[in-house]
Amino acid sequence: MPSFDETPLTDRHFDDYRPGAGGTYGPVEVTASSIVGFAADFDPHTMHLDPVGAADGPFGGLIASGWHTTAMMMRLMVDNFLNERTSLASPGVDELRWHRPVRPGDQLRARFTVLEARPSRSKPDRGIVRTRIEMLNQHDEVVMSQIMMNLIERRA
Amino acid sequence: MPSFDETPLTDRHFDDYRPGAGGTYGPVEVTASSIVGFAADFDPHTMHLDPVGAADGPFGGLIASGWHTTAMMMRLMVDNFLNERTSLASPGVDELRWHRPVRPGDQLRARFTVLEARPSRSKPDRGIVRTRIEMLNQHDEVVMSQIMMNLIERRA
Repeated sequence: MPSFDETPLTDRHFDDYRPGAGGTYGPVEVTASSIVGFAADFDPHTMHLDPVGAADGPFGGLIASGWHTTAMMMRLMVDNFLNERTSLASPGVDELRWHRPVRPGDQLRARFTVLEARPSRSKPDRGIVRTRIEMLNQHDEVVMSQIMMNLIERRA
Repeated sequence: MPSFDETPLTDRHFDDYRPGAGGTYGPVEVTASSIVGFAADFDPHTMHLDPVGAADGPFGGLIASGWHTTAMMMRLMVDNFLNERTSLASPGVDELRWHRPVRPGDQLRARFTVLEARPSRSKPDRGIVRTRIEMLNQHDEVVMSQIMMNLIERRA
């Protein structure tokens, strides 16, 4: 049976997301303009929006909205971990934590580790996968973590 | 003592976020272009990105990324619920759930209800507030829910 990494993204099904499967992907570079752009739309706090005002704030400089960090994680997840054809939906996330500030110039990677994979009792064509997700910066510090659930199609 | 609503946003401190305090704010209109724009940056699944391909997908049409819905919630939270001067940081979120699809044309409101407010043991100038957050659509259906923690300054 091929390993998770050996199975091409476009062929991954529920059956491939066994406990322990996963990988680390990225990096994505965080820019000041992407931080400010996200904040202007969705989280216009001074600490996310205004480099000058943020210097006097609780983090001593501009930091990314926590929701921007989760969004950057999702991009790495779609590009590297989930097969968009077999990934049907996400019921939700548990234990989302923002551990450390994310600053301009940071290089973020996402580490995915399958915790549990359980066939659906009501719909035999799919199963639910629970994955531990951690975002790491260039110092290997965890800046964000969460456990996401995904409904994924089984191989026919 | 003035009620939560009577206290101007710019004067709200930890002391005002008592259990039961809160309100419902919005609506924000969800447009197809905002769904597609967010997806192109952060969640490029067909169901979020391509109205034609999404019609054949699991939701029968374009739906917003779950992370887009949380981001729209955050905007309503910053504009209406949190005082950006006294709101210091968020440690994280528990029990984030996406209950129903969000579609173009939906009108979303955010309902905030303080569950718990606890002074910090280590830092007497602040406390932690736990808030139940629900996003409702124009049919009063809950499309997303979560419990967010926020560190907020106490009144001097």
